[in-house]
Amino acid sequence: MGDRATMAEIAQAVGVSSATVSKVWNGRADVSDHTRQRVEEMLRLHGYRGRRQWRSEPAGTIDVIFSEIDCAWEGEHLRGIEEAGHAAGVRIVVSSLDRGETARRQLVQRLRAGRTDGAILATMTASGSLVKALHRMNVPVVALDPVCRTAGDLLSVDAANFDGARAATAHLLGLGHRRIGLIAGLDELMCSRARRDGFLAAHDDAGVPPDLGLVERGGFDFPSGIVAGGRLLDRSIPPTAIFAMSDLMAIGVYEAARLRGLSVPDQLSVVGFDDLPGARWASPPLTTVRQPLREMGALAVRSALGLAGGGVLDTRLLIRESTAPL
Amino acid sequence: MGDRATMAEIAQAVGVSSATVSKVWNGRADVSDHTRQRVEEMLRLHGYRGRRQWRSEPAGTIDVIFSEIDCAWEGEHLRGIEEAGHAAGVRIVVSSLDRGETARRQLVQRLRAGRTDGAILATMTASGSLVKALHRMNVPVVALDPVCRTAGDLLSVDAANFDGARAATAHLLGLGHRRIGLIAGLDELMCSRARRDGFLAAHDDAGVPPDLGLVERGGFDFPSGIVAGGRLLDRSIPPTAIFAMSDLMAIGVYEAARLRGLSVPDQLSVVGFDDLPGARWASPPLTTVRQPLREMGALAVRSALGLAGGGVLDTRLLIRESTAPL
Repeated sequence: MGDRATMAEIAQAVGVSSATVSKVWNGRADVSDHTRQRVEEMLRLHGYRGRRQWRSEPAGTIDVIFSEIDCAWEGEHLRGIEEAGHAAGVRIVVSSLDRGETARRQLVQRLRAGRTDGAILATMTASGSLVKALHRMNVPVVALDPVCRTAGDLLSVDAANFDGARAATAHLLGLGHRRIGLIAGLDELMCSRARRDGFLAAHDDAGVPPDLGLVERGGFDFPSGIVAGGRLLDRSIPPTAIFAMSDLMAIGVYEAARLRGLSVPDQLSVVGFDDLPGARWASPPLTTVRQPLREMGALAVRSALGLAGGGVLDTRLLIRESTAPL
Repeated sequence: MGDRATMAEIAQAVGVSSATVSKVWNGRADVSDHTRQRVEEMLRLHGYRGRRQWRSEPAGTIDVIFSEIDCAWEGEHLRGIEEAGHAAGVRIVVSSLDRGETARRQLVQRLRAGRTDGAILATMTASGSLVKALHRMNVPVVALDPVCRTAGDLLSVDAANFDGARAATAHLLGLGHRRIGLIAGLDELMCSRARRDGFLAAHDDAGVPPDLGLVERGGFDFPSGIVAGGRLLDRSIPPTAIFAMSDLMAIGVYEAARLRGLSVPDQLSVVGFDDLPGARWASPPLTTVRQPLREMGALAVRSALGLAGGGVLDTRLLIRESTAPL
């Protein structure tokens, strides 16, 4: 073997996209058997046997790219990412894209110059141009994404959103609530749809028709929880319980309730989603659906290093003090 | 000039420690004029004119070392650190030491192998052995430390703790409160002492004797705020206001009040310190002393790169809804 062919050259030789070669290389399932066999053959022909061989040597670095470094999911993710990086002996480099297109271009330049063993796109809508640039550099990309599931062709680490929302709603129905408000996230995000489906499924399970007049939309953040919660509480027949698709929106509902002189959980039950540290600090402590954010971060690192293949981790309902029988 | 002398060789030639050479190089004030002149002369003799010249080329990396990655100060610090790193064109590598001595050893090994332009010790009691190891590697070290001011010989970035606590206490006194509870941090931490002094100074300013029977100690975290707040509220003559030395402890006081059926601010005024995002999310929003955590992170990066010399940044009282006239 002389100089090794690049992923792009392998792709050209087989007549498929680089993304397809990458998928085969990463052991992804969404490639036809026929294509997989041809790509694998070409890879073998060119001497590729281990993931690391795309490079002469590992860079010892994983890049974590946040859309914004905030005190929401990011801290918990980063904790798991740092732990797994430590265990694997790689450095964790942190970047944020909240400076827009310039930041994205500079990031790509830096990655090209600085070499990296993999990139984790954390809690963000994956940017098509960024992902393409990373693929061209043969950098493995993992979407760590509790906010949305990215469009198809990336390894991803996710939480069981449907199950979590179903458990949260079933809990409220079990307490006797029948008018349950829903504060959803943006519809275009996969996790919002999955959680909404879980909300509806729990109603189906219980034989209770959901009150679709009690659905509001928020942006996962605290202020939108105040606004959406306020709208629900100002209905002529307000809900007796509210399920918010994020802890921050749920804590916003607390504030909307306080401003109206309503006490949680005596006059209003509230359930969140995430189990951020702030859920424990809320007064009263927030009943919520735990996403294993730290474990998700760790799995993303292992996936970026080719030691795991992404996945969907379990969620779990944690019953604290913000919910009470009707 | 042929091969450049190392910092250790310069130190040996002058007959001082490497730390002293480092201090002179970094423009620190705590070196005698006599020593400074001799070191500067030797540095000039060896062709050192800019900080970067300690290395053949910059590594393009700043290491940020947290004692623990948590959702308290760390997220805000990291945001400022990442922004300043981006502006300076350096990568930000994140590590945590919460795995103890092994983690510290591995970190030192990694830094030695991987080269770094500077290390920021964030929100932690600086470990003597880590600092020594970094000095031996000629790595500039900056203590970014809202929890404690490290012992003397490090560049540090801090907040105006005394002023902030004085303003918080003056605010409560101005509202007519005379029995003000204090939830302090650990006495051995410089910031706790400075904040306690500010608390006492505000009483002096107002000619009101502080009630030293209303002082409890916490660990800056949420659970210790519940415990300490509970102790204060269970006094036979409880305080009408509480100043907690961190937002998390203040939010713990909310919970202690709720458990006793007391409403904030009608029956109890509460002031925190930090202005974490959770202060805005608290219900009611928390009156607190803002530390410019992001700006502190940015200044730490610039100081580690030799573009600034550390400093003490202003704090500011933010009056929200957790305080009311007596």
